[in-house]
Amino acid sequence: MATQTEPKKIIIDTDPGIDDAMAIFLALRSPEVQVIGLTTIYGNVYTTLATRNALHLLEVAGRTDIPVAEGSHVTLTKGTKLRIADFVHGADGLGNQNFPPPNGKPIEESAASFLVNQAKANPGKITVVALGPLTNIALAIQMDPEFAKNIGQIVLLGGSFAVNGNVNPAAEANIFGDPDAADVVFTSGADILAVGINVTHQVVLSGSDREKLASSKGKFAQYLTQILEVYFSYHHDAYNTKGVYLHDPTTLLAAVDPSLVTCTEGSVRVQTSGITRGLTVLYNKQKRFGETTEWCNMPTVKVAVTVDAPRVVKLVMDRLLV
Amino acid sequence: MATQTEPKKIIIDTDPGIDDAMAIFLALRSPEVQVIGLTTIYGNVYTTLATRNALHLLEVAGRTDIPVAEGSHVTLTKGTKLRIADFVHGADGLGNQNFPPPNGKPIEESAASFLVNQAKANPGKITVVALGPLTNIALAIQMDPEFAKNIGQIVLLGGSFAVNGNVNPAAEANIFGDPDAADVVFTSGADILAVGINVTHQVVLSGSDREKLASSKGKFAQYLTQILEVYFSYHHDAYNTKGVYLHDPTTLLAAVDPSLVTCTEGSVRVQTSGITRGLTVLYNKQKRFGETTEWCNMPTVKVAVTVDAPRVVKLVMDRLLV
Repeated sequence: MATQTEPKKIIIDTDPGIDDAMAIFLALRSPEVQVIGLTTIYGNVYTTLATRNALHLLEVAGRTDIPVAEGSHVTLTKGTKLRIADFVHGADGLGNQNFPPPNGKPIEESAASFLVNQAKANPGKITVVALGPLTNIALAIQMDPEFAKNIGQIVLLGGSFAVNGNVNPAAEANIFGDPDAADVVFTSGADILAVGINVTHQVVLSGSDREKLASSKGKFAQYLTQILEVYFSYHHDAYNTKGVYLHDPTTLLAAVDPSLVTCTEGSVRVQTSGITRGLTVLYNKQKRFGETTEWCNMPTVKVAVTVDAPRVVKLVMDRLLV
Repeated sequence: MATQTEPKKIIIDTDPGIDDAMAIFLALRSPEVQVIGLTTIYGNVYTTLATRNALHLLEVAGRTDIPVAEGSHVTLTKGTKLRIADFVHGADGLGNQNFPPPNGKPIEESAASFLVNQAKANPGKITVVALGPLTNIALAIQMDPEFAKNIGQIVLLGGSFAVNGNVNPAAEANIFGDPDAADVVFTSGADILAVGINVTHQVVLSGSDREKLASSKGKFAQYLTQILEVYFSYHHDAYNTKGVYLHDPTTLLAAVDPSLVTCTEGSVRVQTSGITRGLTVLYNKQKRFGETTEWCNMPTVKVAVTVDAPRVVKLVMDRLLV
């Protein structure tokens, strides 16, 4: 008899978002994980709309048993103007489809408090999959000095390691969204796997994949077909490509099956001001510096460097063509 | 009969420096170029010592006909504490050999003025090979609005494109030495080839190359054998390697024979503050950004991405084993 493994408990911190919707559906269709909550954050949309969309997506999936905890409406230092990527995902975050408002409501607990309490109740057992700016995670770290130790792992979509960013040549959108929070998270000592756009830009959902989704009668496939148009159109304008990058689904699947990526390990610091604000620099430890640097004596994190892109796309298709 | 090509006129902006000494000797031994002047700058040593060492090296080579123009003693914005890499090159910049003071003196003209006037007198014909922080070049650009157009090309050792720096994980030493000056140079519109440590770290002078130099009776080989010990020792401590990186010689040779490197082209901006001060970000133009960025509408420069390392090392050895 095969050994039965308990599914990994995950909390998805999310700003839905078209590829967030894909990631959430993927998680719900992955027997390896059990989604114990969604926490919401600004990014692709403002936090209020992220919460509405999270509740809506759970209703679409018939999974209103999963709690949604609303996250921060402002950056960690509170002073920063938010950058909302509605030009990527549509004004409603879900492809300008004017879905009806959800029936459900978020729980009373804040996202940070939910993260802290779940980690405390299940020490070492919870994985946070962070798909937006890292404000909620940083708040949890600041709220509870034990959080970084209690949390099993943080798998985050963020950074552009050794490649150009997607907000500007220096910065990736999630880190740019709250660089101070990102620096808190990267230096917290938690077990972290960062999946940057150097990796997710290798994972493309093609036009023909999209056609397969469109011709499926499955609930998820039909829903995604509806919302994907805006996302394809943005990619065509910005990258002159006929496919779309699977940022959030790749990150979610890296939590579901770590063998999909290979990693390097080092200290990551985030530039928080100036023209490269939001830039992530990984110290690969190949050089012993004569002088003290901001990377010295910092905890290390794992940073994804390669991805089995065909297997990721196959998993996405297999699990969402329903 | 073969066509005779006039040698390319070059000015070497330098902070000697052990690998600067190699680069200067290489230039003097390269029939493809004619060294019309050295300008000096702080970096491996303070500017006063750089001038002394430049004069000394020309005396060693028997080339006191070449003028030395002293450069800036301070950064472009004047407020920055200088970082002097005496732990790499020795307190005297030349391997702690206590060479006697030179007999010669620098010319009256400042480095920036010399650069401006030489470029004006020979429009499009002068190549500056910049081996230290870029203060003098930035001052020349600010002194004469025509300088960027008059100068033929600026081939500079600077930046760490998509790899860790050598001052800290973010910054390479020459750009870190004066980030404001570097940003002025990169955005000046001059024809620029940047050779970063992503390239020069591929070009290693090995212990056995050093032994060959030591067993040569040649003037340059004998001199270099004397000063190389400190440089090898630093590399062993910092990189745990038995070879040394040929930063300056590689850059000089890229000016002598551009076919030694391949390049990409894009806009480069420099972060001038914060923990990644001195970091260079090249925009590869693969994405069309929705928002205006600091890289928009900036002139492009060439950035070396590959190098024929064996051919560089062979040229170094062939020309210095004398």
